[in-house]
Amino acid sequence: MDERALIGRVGEIIGPDAVADDCAVVPLDGDVLVLSTDMLHEAADFPRGMTDWQIGWMAAAVTLSDIAAMGARPVAVLLAVGLDRWERLEGITEGAAACTARFGCELAGGDTDAHAELTVVSSGVGRVRRERLVRRTGSAPGDLVCITGTPGCAQAGLAGFLQHQGALLEPQPEVAAGQRLGEAGATAMMDVSDGLVISLYDLLAVNACGYAIDSDRVPLPGGVPADEAREYALYGGGDFGLLFTISPERFPVAGVKATAIGRAIPERRVLVDGEVADAGGYQHRWSVK
Amino acid sequence: MDERALIGRVGEIIGPDAVADDCAVVPLDGDVLVLSTDMLHEAADFPRGMTDWQIGWMAAAVTLSDIAAMGARPVAVLLAVGLDRWERLEGITEGAAACTARFGCELAGGDTDAHAELTVVSSGVGRVRRERLVRRTGSAPGDLVCITGTPGCAQAGLAGFLQHQGALLEPQPEVAAGQRLGEAGATAMMDVSDGLVISLYDLLAVNACGYAIDSDRVPLPGGVPADEAREYALYGGGDFGLLFTISPERFPVAGVKATAIGRAIPERRVLVDGEVADAGGYQHRWSVK
Repeated sequence: MDERALIGRVGEIIGPDAVADDCAVVPLDGDVLVLSTDMLHEAADFPRGMTDWQIGWMAAAVTLSDIAAMGARPVAVLLAVGLDRWERLEGITEGAAACTARFGCELAGGDTDAHAELTVVSSGVGRVRRERLVRRTGSAPGDLVCITGTPGCAQAGLAGFLQHQGALLEPQPEVAAGQRLGEAGATAMMDVSDGLVISLYDLLAVNACGYAIDSDRVPLPGGVPADEAREYALYGGGDFGLLFTISPERFPVAGVKATAIGRAIPERRVLVDGEVADAGGYQHRWSVK
Repeated sequence: MDERALIGRVGEIIGPDAVADDCAVVPLDGDVLVLSTDMLHEAADFPRGMTDWQIGWMAAAVTLSDIAAMGARPVAVLLAVGLDRWERLEGITEGAAACTARFGCELAGGDTDAHAELTVVSSGVGRVRRERLVRRTGSAPGDLVCITGTPGCAQAGLAGFLQHQGALLEPQPEVAAGQRLGEAGATAMMDVSDGLVISLYDLLAVNACGYAIDSDRVPLPGGVPADEAREYALYGGGDFGLLFTISPERFPVAGVKATAIGRAIPERRVLVDGEVADAGGYQHRWSVK
């Protein structure tokens, strides 16, 4: 059973709504809280040579990205760390604290334990006014399909392109852009940390429409041969850009660097250049989620 | 470095207040949110023979107990599960969902991953009116030292006393008692999941007073030889009772079954029957926290 099939089974137990977004959503007076938890561990999630500081940064960034994808403001992050060596905790904590501070939120606490394999679980809370919450559901045919940033950079960094190491090792969650897109009326949103095409399939799974993108419009990582760059941009994981749909009249959004790469369509399919896209994507090929 | 020394070092990075309680505390309008995360894994935390359902229950219960210890009402729990075998997720999720439902809160979502050793991280959010929040700090000399329930039962269960298996395998967090004690004005509180005496040392570390308890007053697990029962009650881990201090005029508290076992004292020491207590306690001897 792959991860997505498994999550479907969990949805039958705790309710499908609880597994349909980057975060869980809990009403709170006129606002909502969004809650996220992400498990990362050494073998699957951290590229070789990553420092402890970068591991901490990435763990916090993954959670901040999930919160950003709901249009929410991050409030606090907690870190549970299973340590193979105690002395790693300091660097990990400093990296996570630097990331939360950078994005205006607090590293509020955590838990530690000894563990054979370094395991870091980052959990976070964000808050957003109810009418500005953006979920994965909500696309309508005719909406633009847009993406912030340049997908494929982290994968290019993993493949050895040194100019993209930053995207791989110290990813920047789109915290400000997520909130602006919520204010601007984005109809659906998620981050593309699993890869662009697989994220379109994730949107397909919970919306009544489909998505058609034009690969020529997708920004590509610079300094990478064109075919390779296209492959990374469509299928590579580890990027923290936001994929969203929005009515054409509301785009572009002031203060958000984003590219329209296609349209939501009535047919329930994911098309790249008019052809049904390969659904494989990456699913823990090397993972950052 | 032991776990408590390590947490001190983390406190230097993220602020000592962030590591001083069972939960992190985040202001929210007139209320506060309390946030908790706990990492459990197979080798250290789950007694042999525990079912997947019980593992899920325990993971949720640990977090609900942390929230209860702040006097807060649990709002939502998230579960991040690193699975050695995919098929375990279903039982774990069902157990966690049963526990959250039993205590009036939602299992709101989570994350899954493959992992060599089963690892379960439960994170939770609770809410409480600011004036009813109970922290670990706040004891004053003369306060009663009290405990809910019977400490040592889980340790007795682990030692093979069958009548205490329930306490070991399906612990009941004191969710209602925690809120009532917050309303009644408990001055400091924490759960005793690491053991009673070590928890008194945890209170000592953050308060300006000390604690003196009388072992004759501590309720003991039934059906266990007296010496052994006393050892389990003072030093055994895995129980989910609440240890709290409260002004004598405010005790007993309606609706809360609790026992006064001693007093807060001006001297900064932990005394059991007038003698300085062994600080060893358990610290991941088998762990539930």
